[in-house]
Amino acid sequence: MKIAVLGTGTVGRTMAARFADLGHEVTIGTRDPEATLARTDQDALGNPPFATWAVDHAQVPLVTFAEAAEQADLVVNATNGGVSIDVLNQAGAANLAGKVLLDIANPLDFSQGFPPTLFVKDTDSLGEQIQRAFPDVKVVKTLNTMTAALMADPALAAGGDHSVFVSGDDADAKKTVIGLLQELGHTDVIDLGDLSTARGTEMLLPIWLRLMGALGTPMFNFKIAR
Amino acid sequence: MKIAVLGTGTVGRTMAARFADLGHEVTIGTRDPEATLARTDQDALGNPPFATWAVDHAQVPLVTFAEAAEQADLVVNATNGGVSIDVLNQAGAANLAGKVLLDIANPLDFSQGFPPTLFVKDTDSLGEQIQRAFPDVKVVKTLNTMTAALMADPALAAGGDHSVFVSGDDADAKKTVIGLLQELGHTDVIDLGDLSTARGTEMLLPIWLRLMGALGTPMFNFKIAR
Repeated sequence: MKIAVLGTGTVGRTMAARFADLGHEVTIGTRDPEATLARTDQDALGNPPFATWAVDHAQVPLVTFAEAAEQADLVVNATNGGVSIDVLNQAGAANLAGKVLLDIANPLDFSQGFPPTLFVKDTDSLGEQIQRAFPDVKVVKTLNTMTAALMADPALAAGGDHSVFVSGDDADAKKTVIGLLQELGHTDVIDLGDLSTARGTEMLLPIWLRLMGALGTPMFNFKIAR
Repeated sequence: MKIAVLGTGTVGRTMAARFADLGHEVTIGTRDPEATLARTDQDALGNPPFATWAVDHAQVPLVTFAEAAEQADLVVNATNGGVSIDVLNQAGAANLAGKVLLDIANPLDFSQGFPPTLFVKDTDSLGEQIQRAFPDVKVVKTLNTMTAALMADPALAAGGDHSVFVSGDDADAKKTVIGLLQELGHTDVIDLGDLSTARGTEMLLPIWLRLMGALGTPMFNFKIAR
C-alpha cells in the first residue's frame, strides 16, 4: 500500500520505518523538507536529527505534507495534536479526499507544563475535530494509547499480549486499518464503534502518563482482560 | 476492621457483603434507613429492593450515614459521584476526621443521557474535590475503574489477571487500602502516586463505558501489560 506518514518525530519515524519494512511504499511528510534535513540538533526528547535517521532509511523519501498525501492510498497522522489540523490543511483537503486517515495524534496541551492537559475531551475529541474539518477523509483513530515502539512492534512488551482500540465512522476504512494493525503484530484489536469513541481513547492519556511515571518506563500497554 | 460502606446501590451492597464475608465488621449507611427498607420497587438497573438484600445479609446493619461513619475505622464511598459530597456532609466531618476514605465514586453526569460525561476532569478530580472538602480525611481513590463484581472478586474475569490503581496523598492510608485490595484478591495493585493521579483513573470511565458496549459485558478490566 502507498502510505504517507505525516510527521518526522518519534511516532512518524517509527511507523514509517516499520511500514517500509513490511513492504509498503512509504513517504514521510514534513513542512519544509530542506529545513528538516538541515537541522543538526537533537529534538526535545533527545532524538537524533532527522538527517541521521534518513541515512538509515533511504527507502523512505522525505517530501512535503502535500506531496506525501497526494501520492498515498492511506495517510498516517503522526503529528502533535496541537498542529494536526494545520498540518492536514498543508497536506490539502483535495489530496486527502476519499482516503483513510489513520489518526494517532493526541490533544495534549503542554502549555502549563507536565503533566499535560487535554485541549479537547469528554464531549468532543481531536479525531472528531479532524473529521469535521475534512469531511471527505475517513478518519480512523487508533494506536494513540501506547508508546511508538509498541505501536510498531507490540511484541516488545508482554509478548504482544495487549490491546489496541479502533474508532471510526467508516466500516471499510476501519477494515483497512485493522488489517494494517494485524500486519504490525497487534493480536487484540477492539473496534469501539463510531469516531466519538475516540473521546475514550484520547482520555486514556492522563493515566498513561502517570503510569509511565509510576512504572518508570513507557514500555507497557493496556490489555482488556476478559 | 470496622468498615462503613456509604451507599446502598450495587457497589455498596457488593462491597459490604464481601467485606463482611472476609470477617470485617461492616455497616452500610443510607440517608434514611426506614425509607430505604420501606422501598419495594427495583432500582433503575433492575436490582431488587434493599430490603430483599438485607434479609440475606443480616450481619450488615443498615444505619444512617453518620452512624456508619462514627463507628468505623475506614469508610467506603460507594455513592454516585454527583451526591458524594452531600453524603459525606451527612456522614459528618467530625465522624470522618482522621479516617481512611476508600473512594470508589466516579464523577458521571447522566443529565444529557448515555454515554454520560464527567462533571470534573483533567485539571481536577472528584477524589481531590472530596479531599479539599474534608481535609481531615485520608482519601484513597481506587476500584473505580471496574464493575462492582470485579471490585469484590477480581477472579471473576480472566482469572484475576488484571490491574487496580491507587491514588492518594497519605502513604499509610494507601498501605491500609492496598492491604484490603489484596484481601479482596487483587494481585496487581499499582500505586500511581498522589491524589491528583485520580484524574487519570476517573477519565478511564468514558472508554470503560464504550468497551462495555463493544464487548457486550461489564465483566472485563484493564490490565497494564508490561
